[in-house]
Amino acid sequence: MKKHIFNAGPCKLPEVVLRDTAEAVLNLNDSGLSILEVSHRGMEFMPIIHEAKKLLMELLNIPEEYSVLFLGGGASMQFVMVPYNFLNKKAAYLNTGYWSRKAIKEAELFGEVVITASCEDSNYTTIPRDYKIPRDADYFHVTTNNTIEGTELFEDIDSPVPLIADMSSDILTRRVDVSKYALIYGGAQKNMGPAGAAFVIVRKDALGKVNREIPSMLNYLVHIEDDSLYNTPPCFAIYTLRETLKWVKEQGGVSEMEKRAKKKADFLYDAIDSSKVFTGMAEKNSRSRMNICFALKDEYKNKEADFIRHTSDRGIVGLQGHRAVGGFRASCYNAMELESVHFLAYTMKEFEKMILK
Amino acid sequence: MKKHIFNAGPCKLPEVVLRDTAEAVLNLNDSGLSILEVSHRGMEFMPIIHEAKKLLMELLNIPEEYSVLFLGGGASMQFVMVPYNFLNKKAAYLNTGYWSRKAIKEAELFGEVVITASCEDSNYTTIPRDYKIPRDADYFHVTTNNTIEGTELFEDIDSPVPLIADMSSDILTRRVDVSKYALIYGGAQKNMGPAGAAFVIVRKDALGKVNREIPSMLNYLVHIEDDSLYNTPPCFAIYTLRETLKWVKEQGGVSEMEKRAKKKADFLYDAIDSSKVFTGMAEKNSRSRMNICFALKDEYKNKEADFIRHTSDRGIVGLQGHRAVGGFRASCYNAMELESVHFLAYTMKEFEKMILK
Repeated sequence: MKKHIFNAGPCKLPEVVLRDTAEAVLNLNDSGLSILEVSHRGMEFMPIIHEAKKLLMELLNIPEEYSVLFLGGGASMQFVMVPYNFLNKKAAYLNTGYWSRKAIKEAELFGEVVITASCEDSNYTTIPRDYKIPRDADYFHVTTNNTIEGTELFEDIDSPVPLIADMSSDILTRRVDVSKYALIYGGAQKNMGPAGAAFVIVRKDALGKVNREIPSMLNYLVHIEDDSLYNTPPCFAIYTLRETLKWVKEQGGVSEMEKRAKKKADFLYDAIDSSKVFTGMAEKNSRSRMNICFALKDEYKNKEADFIRHTSDRGIVGLQGHRAVGGFRASCYNAMELESVHFLAYTMKEFEKMILK
Repeated sequence: MKKHIFNAGPCKLPEVVLRDTAEAVLNLNDSGLSILEVSHRGMEFMPIIHEAKKLLMELLNIPEEYSVLFLGGGASMQFVMVPYNFLNKKAAYLNTGYWSRKAIKEAELFGEVVITASCEDSNYTTIPRDYKIPRDADYFHVTTNNTIEGTELFEDIDSPVPLIADMSSDILTRRVDVSKYALIYGGAQKNMGPAGAAFVIVRKDALGKVNREIPSMLNYLVHIEDDSLYNTPPCFAIYTLRETLKWVKEQGGVSEMEKRAKKKADFLYDAIDSSKVFTGMAEKNSRSRMNICFALKDEYKNKEADFIRHTSDRGIVGLQGHRAVGGFRASCYNAMELESVHFLAYTMKEFEKMILK
């Protein structure tokens, strides 16, 4: 039975990426060596990490004054590295949900943190739009897609202070004007590859402005100087990431991914909005294209487990909402096929008919 | 042509581990899902990380009051986490080479660092043996195997203060009395699996004694509380690590690995010592079993490139010494086969005959 993988991350990857990766584990480019056995400073691996950087620069149209890094540790480590490298006195954060709050918590160890706006009042079902970024902040931090609450900020904000964005879950799914950001970061494990690597895109002249001493591994300048090879990088994750970037390019690049994301999300939200038993969780103008969060209407809430069983019996995987919010979540990252989205909508309709009978 | 992989890390892994891993990238346990696509909190991955921990506990005879963690970031991140979590006022470090110095550099950001003993005078070709560990130090840090200089400390030191060891390159290659250590850490990419994960073995009651606030991702207690799942772990690296631990167990465990390591190292050092053109770099009683560093005698130094060519023409990979010390280095981690060591010794003899002709 075909599996339809709606996992929130780690998540579905393109089949060709999986095949190439499995082959590289056995025999990398016919070298007789596995990708797991080659030196990170050798002639087998160096072209891989360089091509990955080049592809990301090209796909996102990253200006030359930016550096691209691939590091271990995931986005959570960036919650620490960002204030370590940027927070002198005061930072401004937009609080749009679970992951914003995690980032804020770490920043508070390094200085004053101002919550510029929060959507706590709406239980994080919206994205705040009216707020003023304090001009004396060292930077303004946003989470562009909120994986758990299913909301998304599609705008590249005009910020009077350096703009820093966690794009873990929507990088490469919409066109972004990188020049508006001082730093963009994220875990790879949604749209860029497997768990085990983080990407950082940083404008070099935004760095080096804090007074504190920074441990080498947490210092962006150290990693830039050593071209992501200050220590042994997560070579395998970077290999799969390179394959994923190649796939994005071959499919038509970020604008094509954006078209597909819109198509998949529109189709699924239509199915939810036209349903008699399901309801969307985020407010319409804040809805994420990546994480489509929905629930059974109050009168059918007791059927939650039935719906999970109904879908998993049909090969649909990963639909349980995050434990913090409940309900269901269909994550539709770049590798998600439109056919699987159609199949999920069909299965929802089927379930609706069953319980309304 | 068969490749003989003497890379210093990432390095050779057992063939069965590579085959299993490639299979899991395509289809994990016949689930129809790739190891790269499953949720780190799901029923596919949880048993993998739990078994990995259990296997490590068993293989190293780790007492119950210890926690085992698998984290991203490599050993270099541990150079930061150790002082963050342990250094209140003063730490003592044994300086045995390149990696010790890296660890010392990071610790100096957090408090006073005393170099208890150094083998700088011998150009790091020895391991210091006569020294006194200061009783007022928060901990005493050692690097048990020096990958670059080819020296190894085989002893589990009796320390009056918590003993912390970087065992990146000799973990699982000799029996260790874990109960003598407060913390043991290392990168996985030598004897435990691929690059992209670090292991930490820590006695729980040694933690929580510093006054500073610690960022969540750098706090051992946070990772212990969340059982290595505070954030998305490097799932793939942990899978391969689990397969590697299974292999070690199937082969006869750590005492068998120790026997093999001794056999391989003895054979190669004998070949070096009986050679007319090669010479060992480390002093005999400090020689590493893992990284066998040797060089051409002064009068043949001009033949270095010839020897590299001679060996690589025969499928021998990774013999170039680290740029910091030069010469050659044959890394013989657990997965290295005795046959490859024999072949290297034969090739050295062949080369010797050629140049002496």
